[in-house]
Amino acid sequence: MTGQMMYEQLSVNSLIDHAARFHGATEVVSVETTGEVARSTWGEVSANARRLASALDRLGVSPGARVGTIAWNNRRHLEIYFGVAAGGRVTHTMNPRLTPEQVAYIANHAGDEVLMFDATFLPLVAPIRAHLDSVQHFVLLGARDEAAATKLDGLLFYDELLETGDPDHAWPEIDERAAAAMCYTSGTTGNPKGVQYSHRAIVLHSIGGNQPDGLALSARDTVMPVVPMFHVNAWGVPYIAAQAGCRLVLPGPKLDGESLARLIDAEGVTISLGVPTIWMGLLAGLEKTGATAASMTRTVVGGSALPPSMIPAFRDKYGVDLVHAWGMTETSPLGTLNQLLQKHEDLSEEEQAKIRLGQGRPPWGVDLRIVDEDGQVLPHDGETQGALQIRGHWIVEGYYGQSGNALTEDGWFDTGDVATIDADGYMIIRDRSKDIIKSGGEWISTVELENIAIAHPAIANAAAIAAVHPKWDQRPVLIAVRAAEAEISEDELIGFYDGKVASWQVPDRVVFVDELPLGATGKVLKNRLRESFGEILLESA
Amino acid sequence: MTGQMMYEQLSVNSLIDHAARFHGATEVVSVETTGEVARSTWGEVSANARRLASALDRLGVSPGARVGTIAWNNRRHLEIYFGVAAGGRVTHTMNPRLTPEQVAYIANHAGDEVLMFDATFLPLVAPIRAHLDSVQHFVLLGARDEAAATKLDGLLFYDELLETGDPDHAWPEIDERAAAAMCYTSGTTGNPKGVQYSHRAIVLHSIGGNQPDGLALSARDTVMPVVPMFHVNAWGVPYIAAQAGCRLVLPGPKLDGESLARLIDAEGVTISLGVPTIWMGLLAGLEKTGATAASMTRTVVGGSALPPSMIPAFRDKYGVDLVHAWGMTETSPLGTLNQLLQKHEDLSEEEQAKIRLGQGRPPWGVDLRIVDEDGQVLPHDGETQGALQIRGHWIVEGYYGQSGNALTEDGWFDTGDVATIDADGYMIIRDRSKDIIKSGGEWISTVELENIAIAHPAIANAAAIAAVHPKWDQRPVLIAVRAAEAEISEDELIGFYDGKVASWQVPDRVVFVDELPLGATGKVLKNRLRESFGEILLESA
Ligand SMILES: Nc1ncnc2c1ncn2[C@@H]1O[C@H](COP(=O)(O)OP(=O)(O)OP(=O)(O)O)[C@@H](O)[C@H]1O
Ligand SMILES: Nc1ncnc2c1ncn2[C@@H]1O[C@H](COP(=O)(O)OP(=O)(O)OP(=O)(O)O)[C@@H](O)[C@H]1O
Ligand SMILES: [Mg+2]
Ligand SMILES: [Mg+2]
Repeated sequence: MTGQMMYEQLSVNSLIDHAARFHGATEVVSVETTGEVARSTWGEVSANARRLASALDRLGVSPGARVGTIAWNNRRHLEIYFGVAAGGRVTHTMNPRLTPEQVAYIANHAGDEVLMFDATFLPLVAPIRAHLDSVQHFVLLGARDEAAATKLDGLLFYDELLETGDPDHAWPEIDERAAAAMCYTSGTTGNPKGVQYSHRAIVLHSIGGNQPDGLALSARDTVMPVVPMFHVNAWGVPYIAAQAGCRLVLPGPKLDGESLARLIDAEGVTISLGVPTIWMGLLAGLEKTGATAASMTRTVVGGSALPPSMIPAFRDKYGVDLVHAWGMTETSPLGTLNQLLQKHEDLSEEEQAKIRLGQGRPPWGVDLRIVDEDGQVLPHDGETQGALQIRGHWIVEGYYGQSGNALTEDGWFDTGDVATIDADGYMIIRDRSKDIIKSGGEWISTVELENIAIAHPAIANAAAIAAVHPKWDQRPVLIAVRAAEAEISEDELIGFYDGKVASWQVPDRVVFVDELPLGATGKVLKNRLRESFGEILLESA
Repeated sequence: MTGQMMYEQLSVNSLIDHAARFHGATEVVSVETTGEVARSTWGEVSANARRLASALDRLGVSPGARVGTIAWNNRRHLEIYFGVAAGGRVTHTMNPRLTPEQVAYIANHAGDEVLMFDATFLPLVAPIRAHLDSVQHFVLLGARDEAAATKLDGLLFYDELLETGDPDHAWPEIDERAAAAMCYTSGTTGNPKGVQYSHRAIVLHSIGGNQPDGLALSARDTVMPVVPMFHVNAWGVPYIAAQAGCRLVLPGPKLDGESLARLIDAEGVTISLGVPTIWMGLLAGLEKTGATAASMTRTVVGGSALPPSMIPAFRDKYGVDLVHAWGMTETSPLGTLNQLLQKHEDLSEEEQAKIRLGQGRPPWGVDLRIVDEDGQVLPHDGETQGALQIRGHWIVEGYYGQSGNALTEDGWFDTGDVATIDADGYMIIRDRSKDIIKSGGEWISTVELENIAIAHPAIANAAAIAAVHPKWDQRPVLIAVRAAEAEISEDELIGFYDGKVASWQVPDRVVFVDELPLGATGKVLKNRLRESFGEILLESA
């Protein structure tokens, strides 16, 4: 028997419509590419989104077309998020830190019909224009700019384009399973892969991921997503902020610690989200500017493992709770988030911090498991390591342009991460499967080795890799960057592992370098390091 | 283009499965019909739910069958919620305060195939057995009881039934649009009407209604739903608690203030939900028992208007935030909930309390509007009153057993309430359309007249009704109950309205009675009062 309840499609449209209708006057603050701080509201963002959808219709852009963006976190980018998706097309955000070749590859692979970009990226886009096979319209995100117009034939300007649109434009009918947005993975372990988010997945992530034990954004929050809007939809924050009616602060191009610290104080940010390296910068920036971050209650950190020292650094001086989360481009991204349970309330701050260092627990909507190499399900005992698999309402089924699905036979997505899960569901990422070191049949976590090195005051950054070894198959080698003006020898650093890990886990060698190779989202490219140093133990043997 | 994301049905199954998998050890405390406090866990509730589903299969209960319940808020009732719905049938909760004739009418109307009830209700069920046309199995919620068995031929016992079931029973495939639960309206304004909740509507309500600005239940909460599980699914709390992993306290049969006050302190309840009359009792009970309610942070109140004095009564002495919510059986029930916005943070407590007296704002997932008698949409200006209409993912489309849908031509559900909505979306219920008094073309809110009378220390309760008037069509008449041992005359009470409302709004007459007629959920039956006193002004004219 069918329940007799109203049936409405779960659509991105409903998120922005709710914001416009019930939070229309709530502010959206945007640091523009020019550095100027612009103030808008959800009502205006919604009207511009409708304008954009109608302007794209008039321009003849096909229904379902991918509209590429290369842009900072700002107001126009936000309008594109909603105007493109709610207008029945697909917002495809791209990472400007990719090489021009990579951008061309991804835009062609996605078949982008329009490309919209901030002025900053004209020098990136103009030279590759001839290689962008599918793009029919180039749109610069700003007012008309004659100098820019000369650099790219037929260049359109966003503000002019909007004027051709209708602020009362009616959204088309949306099928909740249709694609609304698209994002490529970071390319840390190989070529970036395209993930296409459906309207339904985005909406379920926006409410399922925003429970009180999840991101927990409210209409009383001023939210600043520092995580880029091209990195898994800024972790879903633009969509969540719309449904929750948050005041939004979009930080624009300057993501250095000092700029962020000043912005937090100036705009009364209550919660911010970003990767650990950004928060390292912020801590330094707060120190330097004397900003107090008094309005701030929480920061959410994810994308790579949380350095242990960061929790007390934020808590003790600034009273800010650091919330650790884990996710992937393929998981929209919220897979787990670390909140304590009722039974942890009486633990000491140190004991609590220990739990909070892990990647946390899954919200309703996703399920996790770990399996061994034969796909056998492993126990949730907090000790057994296995390949982490996930499934749920906002998890990828297949990559864009690849035939078949990307799942196991029984319908789970293999994350490529190695993890433990304890009896309460707390998950800890031990490593990536491609990175973990298999020494004489035993596994050594590179994350653990790196955390020890980074805790040494003379070390600025470090990456552990598996080097081929004639006897043990693989042995750990540490590639390290010395802190400015610090001195430390290979032997000293190796000695620093004494008593911190079992002796067979201590790196065989330390190699000092000036900097580590980073991918476009700031993650260490370990495959490059393995290319350079993976045979070092053979040479020296 | 279709998004390439996993597609899973939104099902009640996923709620209990999440609770079992990630909050399996979290406690479910249940005050049994015997008075005993029983302790269980989400893991055990889930196993018993599977046992029940498999036992019903073995008993030959049809797929999609309605399973009626007449029961308190307790552990077995919770297991039925999940075991019946996740097993592919429909949980149909009934109100034991209905008359035997009404119970028979509703059970027959719903076509219940099984009837499960607490021992308390054997005397209600046994005599009407012959009138329950569709019921094939009667199940008493407890262990075998020979005395009970003699009173109803073929009576089954829940605990025995469970033993025939399999704790690892696999759920059937669920279509998210299938019915999972069913509930009849309170019958305040006429015959109760049946609402059939789909799996999808329940899940979307469970996550959409539990945002930080909504019910906001977390795994750190100990939640006590005092609102009965037969009143709109206890406002959805059992489902929400499962997905959020709350510790749950089910208060059983004793809902007097003293019992509740003791239970709150004994179990460390952090949040409770119920109707205003229950909270009146609780305030008295706290006072009498000396309970401190120290663990309690919030209570949610709804079902009828919040008496203004209640906010400071809870806040000043107990530090408990009273959160006002509005909803209906037809709205799952969350329509609005009252949380402040960021811009209200600097207001004084009094100014904040004034805002919080209203019924609040809609969460994402529902939309509200007010219309005039011709169906024209009215402005959200906080002044204009109109018929309140609602639509969204968890709103009824049609009543059970009635052909056609129950909506306006453009797809909205008319609530039967009269309301204002302000520019921020704050809605205030002014009256029910059937109750509001139309005096000489002007509307007079009965709620407002009642609030004034109830604030008088000599008045225990009061209801205003429209009495027929030869000149003005209708005029207000107040039916009042004096407080114990208090004395007050008709003229004194009429004088008490001086300066509080416009003079043409002051009731023409006050009639004192010993008690007001209450419906099965404790609401005043104004149609009965209109029958008794609706012509009083004609007589006296
Ligand atoms: N909190 C965290 N702690 C540790 N690792 C994390 C955390 N959050 C994310 N990660 C890592 O980031 C990965 C997801 O990153 P993303 O989707 O941006 O692309 P990528 O995996 O780095 O790139 P590619 O898949 O193209 O190689 C996860 O699989 C995990 O390895
Ligand atoms: N916070 C509130 N303030 C004022 N009235 C409320 C509030 N919450 C609910 N109500 C009233 O309760 C109604 C919904 O109650 P319910 O679904 O239990 O049945 P009923 O409307 O009383 O009965 P019936 O529809 O059978 O006449 C609303 O339409 C509204 O009139
Ligand atoms: Mg990856
Ligand atoms: Mg009603």
